[in-house]
Amino acid sequence: MSQTKKFMLITLGEELLLGLTRNGHLTFVGDQLRQRGVTLHGNYTISDESDEIDDHFKFCWERGDVVITTGGLGPTVDDRTKEALADALGETLVFDESILNAIQDRFRRIGKRMSPNNRKQAYRPESAEVLENPLGTAPGLWLQKSGKILVMLPGPPNELQPMFTEQVIPRLEKLDFIETAENYLQVRTIGVGESALEMQFQSLFDAHPGLAVAYCAHQGQVDFRLSFPNENDRQQELQSIAEECKRALGENFLSFGHDTTAEIVSKLLRERGATLSTAESCTGGLIANAFTDLQGASDVFSGGIVSYCNEAKMELLGVPEKLIQDHTEVSAPVAEAMARGAAERLHSDYAISSTGYAGPDGGTEENPVGTIFVGLHSPRGSASKRYSWNGGRLGIKKRALQAALDLLRRELIAPANAPADQLQSTP
Amino acid sequence: MSQTKKFMLITLGEELLLGLTRNGHLTFVGDQLRQRGVTLHGNYTISDESDEIDDHFKFCWERGDVVITTGGLGPTVDDRTKEALADALGETLVFDESILNAIQDRFRRIGKRMSPNNRKQAYRPESAEVLENPLGTAPGLWLQKSGKILVMLPGPPNELQPMFTEQVIPRLEKLDFIETAENYLQVRTIGVGESALEMQFQSLFDAHPGLAVAYCAHQGQVDFRLSFPNENDRQQELQSIAEECKRALGENFLSFGHDTTAEIVSKLLRERGATLSTAESCTGGLIANAFTDLQGASDVFSGGIVSYCNEAKMELLGVPEKLIQDHTEVSAPVAEAMARGAAERLHSDYAISSTGYAGPDGGTEENPVGTIFVGLHSPRGSASKRYSWNGGRLGIKKRALQAALDLLRRELIAPANAPADQLQSTP
Repeated sequence: MSQTKKFMLITLGEELLLGLTRNGHLTFVGDQLRQRGVTLHGNYTISDESDEIDDHFKFCWERGDVVITTGGLGPTVDDRTKEALADALGETLVFDESILNAIQDRFRRIGKRMSPNNRKQAYRPESAEVLENPLGTAPGLWLQKSGKILVMLPGPPNELQPMFTEQVIPRLEKLDFIETAENYLQVRTIGVGESALEMQFQSLFDAHPGLAVAYCAHQGQVDFRLSFPNENDRQQELQSIAEECKRALGENFLSFGHDTTAEIVSKLLRERGATLSTAESCTGGLIANAFTDLQGASDVFSGGIVSYCNEAKMELLGVPEKLIQDHTEVSAPVAEAMARGAAERLHSDYAISSTGYAGPDGGTEENPVGTIFVGLHSPRGSASKRYSWNGGRLGIKKRALQAALDLLRRELIAPANAPADQLQSTP
Repeated sequence: MSQTKKFMLITLGEELLLGLTRNGHLTFVGDQLRQRGVTLHGNYTISDESDEIDDHFKFCWERGDVVITTGGLGPTVDDRTKEALADALGETLVFDESILNAIQDRFRRIGKRMSPNNRKQAYRPESAEVLENPLGTAPGLWLQKSGKILVMLPGPPNELQPMFTEQVIPRLEKLDFIETAENYLQVRTIGVGESALEMQFQSLFDAHPGLAVAYCAHQGQVDFRLSFPNENDRQQELQSIAEECKRALGENFLSFGHDTTAEIVSKLLRERGATLSTAESCTGGLIANAFTDLQGASDVFSGGIVSYCNEAKMELLGVPEKLIQDHTEVSAPVAEAMARGAAERLHSDYAISSTGYAGPDGGTEENPVGTIFVGLHSPRGSASKRYSWNGGRLGIKKRALQAALDLLRRELIAPANAPADQLQSTP
């Protein structure tokens, strides 16, 4: 990348300003650029009034090298992006037969009639090139002018996203406006805090002048990204630093890259030809759902039981009534019995379980709201771990999901010569 | 509200621009203002560099009546919001003993030592008032100047949100910058498209001059909000229009307000003293999870079975092997048998089920990827419904969740004199 370029993103849409929809375009475009060594300079969410588009576009065009807009390319009178921007740039709109043909083709393919107002979408600013949109009627547009670039993208995420990765990214690459490949290496960790990581690796990182390290903590995990900004020839050095971090982290190392804990665990199970089932009380289906979100889940996931009431714990998971009476349903023995029961009833090699008080009501003096036991059954035996978290009901469910996944992950990577009659305990 | 004011929101934070975090402040503030009759004018996400803050703040202050900033009030050198804005407004920063006392109090309460750099947080622009922050060290700030208002809020959502609702909203109300109460009435519908609704209600709406109607479609649902902008004395008229819509919508009427389908179904079950269980194949725990996200779920939710493999469908839900052989596991009879099985094994009055191909692999010629059967068991019998959707795996799971909830909802509100031996079929 020759020199850092300023990228500005204008997201149009009243539904964003009304708080009805999350700004997924910011997350997507920001992430895509980050992976190519660029930090998005600013994001402007505005309504689709012509004056607003004009005012903000001028602000951005003056300051930026690349301006990306999303939305406002549809067939209705409310869709004014193209008109407003052509105006601001002193461009004439020309009718493009090839756009019309593409729109007509699309209507033919989906077996619907083109409405007359779709003709509006076949106009483009005279110097704009078309970015094809096989998934919708509005094509994207790419316009180079005075050394700057304007990219107009349609609003629907399923149209915008492939257009961005398949057509915009390669063009930006060719112009040397972004890095040609992911320019950083991400290390994912679990079970160590951010400041502990900083201390652990300070001397290693200091030994490599020019190294940039960015931390990001989320739900008990800490990721850090290593890069040598604007130095593409130090990839091998980056790789060896990352490998050294991995060795030092031991079982607290999760992965290089972007895989989630559920993906990592699925991969480990698949490599071992093993299957998993779940027995959930307080997480209430969240763990099963995390696995079934993954493509090809049925290879490793046998199924799950959400045993929200004690009857279900006894009847469907075979947890002995006496165990619940002696220890209450929120206890280590019950968590372990639930996991054993799931593995048995669903014929799986491994099983994970959860039982606890997600709140806001419930809890006891010994185990107040936020107390969760996660359980594990593996071919080597059973184990469990007690946690106590603050936060809302949904936050506690998510923490419990991560904790259960991590308990299983640590067992899956445990050395074969670990004591066979007891599971490795987690720190 | 005397006259519509322009509200601008500046959200600071590189993690937003890098696509690492969603812009929840936009969603929250936008929604809060919308409930008070104001559409946020623009949202600007920028980094926390002083120049950037200065440049964008000036742009917003020139155009807006109220500028709200989030973030950059912390104790580190990266936190520059206060300094940059004071500078832009020609304000001096003064040391405020009362802020320091509040910070010291807070550290005492949580049993930690105040770090010397927290002293920085005790400075405020000379004309700013303090918005107290019982949940963090950074106070918010409120500054009135030249008839305009600047509100500075801390970045953590759990600190920002109560500060906004408890301190900012009442001040804006007092100035008559926002409506004193929710000024619209929201009608939620399911099973009717947006354009069909428009046609159905056009003449009703036209009969009330000044009525504003805003539609919002999401996942098979369409909401519309009715309001008389700037006319607070027509609340009763609004109410009667909404009631007329409800009557005309019949069972396609979901609710007034903001309740989700899961909340509506939970309420209906609770009113009837009835319980629910789930049998999920393609939704894989998503339905159970939606119920267990709700506080007090255990009153109505007995539990669920995620029967991802056929063995589980047979062994845990008692689906006859022959039924699967004759119809395949993705079929109406299997969906109904799954629901019956769940109700029986989990001793619930009602049960809902899902089986289908969420993709991207799988499917048959007759039932390609995207085909889902949802099943229902009720004290009156069993029913099922076939759906076919486009979209990714997660999108299809979400649609199936909504469809299953709606099948149950329609049964729960069916008139008692509906034919007892068969369930009401949905349109």
